[in-house]
Amino acid sequence: MDTIYTYQSLYDFTYTVFKHIGCSDADATTATKALLAADVRGIDSHGVARLSGYVRLWEAGRINSKPNSTIKHETPSTAVVDGDAGLGLVVAPHAMQIAIDKAEKVGTGWVSVSNSNHFGIAGYHAMMALEKDMIGIAMTNASALVAPTFSVERMLGTNPIAVAIPAGNEHPFIADFATTTAANGKLEILQRKNADAPSGWVQDKEGHESTNANALKTGGALLPLGSDREHGSHKGYALGSIVDIFSAVLSGASYGPWAPPFPAYVPMPENMPGKGLGHFFGAMRIDAFRPAAEFKQHMDNWLQRFRNAKPATDQEKVLVPGDPEREMEAIRMKEGIPIVESVVNDLKTVAEKFNIRF
Amino acid sequence: MDTIYTYQSLYDFTYTVFKHIGCSDADATTATKALLAADVRGIDSHGVARLSGYVRLWEAGRINSKPNSTIKHETPSTAVVDGDAGLGLVVAPHAMQIAIDKAEKVGTGWVSVSNSNHFGIAGYHAMMALEKDMIGIAMTNASALVAPTFSVERMLGTNPIAVAIPAGNEHPFIADFATTTAANGKLEILQRKNADAPSGWVQDKEGHESTNANALKTGGALLPLGSDREHGSHKGYALGSIVDIFSAVLSGASYGPWAPPFPAYVPMPENMPGKGLGHFFGAMRIDAFRPAAEFKQHMDNWLQRFRNAKPATDQEKVLVPGDPEREMEAIRMKEGIPIVESVVNDLKTVAEKFNIRF
Repeated sequence: MDTIYTYQSLYDFTYTVFKHIGCSDADATTATKALLAADVRGIDSHGVARLSGYVRLWEAGRINSKPNSTIKHETPSTAVVDGDAGLGLVVAPHAMQIAIDKAEKVGTGWVSVSNSNHFGIAGYHAMMALEKDMIGIAMTNASALVAPTFSVERMLGTNPIAVAIPAGNEHPFIADFATTTAANGKLEILQRKNADAPSGWVQDKEGHESTNANALKTGGALLPLGSDREHGSHKGYALGSIVDIFSAVLSGASYGPWAPPFPAYVPMPENMPGKGLGHFFGAMRIDAFRPAAEFKQHMDNWLQRFRNAKPATDQEKVLVPGDPEREMEAIRMKEGIPIVESVVNDLKTVAEKFNIRF
Repeated sequence: MDTIYTYQSLYDFTYTVFKHIGCSDADATTATKALLAADVRGIDSHGVARLSGYVRLWEAGRINSKPNSTIKHETPSTAVVDGDAGLGLVVAPHAMQIAIDKAEKVGTGWVSVSNSNHFGIAGYHAMMALEKDMIGIAMTNASALVAPTFSVERMLGTNPIAVAIPAGNEHPFIADFATTTAANGKLEILQRKNADAPSGWVQDKEGHESTNANALKTGGALLPLGSDREHGSHKGYALGSIVDIFSAVLSGASYGPWAPPFPAYVPMPENMPGKGLGHFFGAMRIDAFRPAAEFKQHMDNWLQRFRNAKPATDQEKVLVPGDPEREMEAIRMKEGIPIVESVVNDLKTVAEKFNIRF
């Protein structure tokens, strides 16, 4: 059974937990907002469900709750940031702000980040650009769960890409997706239900198609977007690789199969070629290309045309990236956020640890 | 039966054709190199097979062979270029050069282009950045053949993305792919053979799965990368949309279902919201992030690790984006380029028109 929590109650609890692991008021606020953006938008795998994981990484000394993230190198339109092993939820908004500040000055800003940790949902960081009339871009590498086309080795993370594009009267365009056929969170839902996975989501340890939702526990791997070669998995593999290289090879983070694992009980890879996880952020000022009002009018036209495209016979309407999450946000801010029992228990354990209420 | 041509013979013929439609020596050279890069790399649908199409667009007055492409607006890191209805094969390298020049000065350069035409393969333009120790990015919108997830309307082109990343001793990383499950060129090959298409490539006019390689001729559509919702087609749809918006909404080109069609006999869409096709180019100087030598050493490590990943039991080896095209290039520069009979006949018709030899 799910339990329904208000945004405010989850906010207060999460903020208190981040304070207990040593975050400053400002960092706890930043991290809480970034984390809860996932729960509110319906990406349940990336919200409070991960809070106990962050705490365990802090206990294992892999998250520094008082990071001093610094610019290691910069040009007018670029920067490389060392996140000082901070929470990705804090390091990422800081780096995205640097990208936005650079875009203010020279049209665009691009920031590659090393030595960070899991940053929540990519979309939250990309969306920071919207209120400045900028296009926002965010991506991150992650621990290796995905096999390249033709391989049985897990070499890449689910490496998401988010792009947020402002509009005028219409709701903005917000794409935020893993570069795999299915996100790992969707597989976890099937595991809990003891259900099969659709074919094309995972392969077994030989590299054969599998519908076993537990395939990753027996040497299998998630598949890149496209599922197999005939359906373009080499394209999903290329996308995941680009995210890995922009986020980690460009910044000096650890890349590919050497990306640090999220679960604190999994040992760090040997011979890591860089520091921590990597992210990549971009901000492009609309009026560095054409007047913002003119662009937004055309985006409204674009969005209306796509939202009004003729649906397939068995479908109700055509969506634009960001529509489902925005609709979910409206519902959850009004009716509350359902949390599954296992996550409730997990959060209660965190509460006990710090002797606080949940 | 295929006929084998040397690169030089195709080069001489193509150059002569571009001269005959009025291109300057410099533009004919630029266009010929860009076009033949497709044939050499094995992307046969985008090379000389399209030459007669360009000629017909010129005859229809839709291609200006003496374009004066101009910067309409710029900032230190961005520019918008009006291609003056020129050959995309000429406009694109010019715009990519602007991106590279801006990257030299402020770290990165980003150029959105309106009023252009089909630009050949995206990868050719992205690769221009490699010799400058930059990452190159190229994308373009195209005439609408693709239905968004849940729709039956053709709203997007196959909208390719190319990303070229330099390496040290290893061959570079070069991704270049349509944001659909299968490129239209692959469908055309099946049509010629009267063969079925794999499921997941196209849908019929009701929006149902189809294996009819001719589905597009009866109101069907190509499917975004991912094929269906369960396999992530909303991600391919998002990617194709991002390419459309960056290339056309940002520049003032015509977007979505209003993108101009490639075949000259297809009338232009009514109420076009912009001018011509749009492209988007990016160049990022490696040493705007970290020393180029250091980056390349890590890219070599990345590339070696991925090329040596353990293959699936029924596979020989794992490839990195760009490997198949580079291997094809080595073969074709040595052994010649096979051209299918229909394209040979097509080129002979072009030759007759201009009273030249093929």
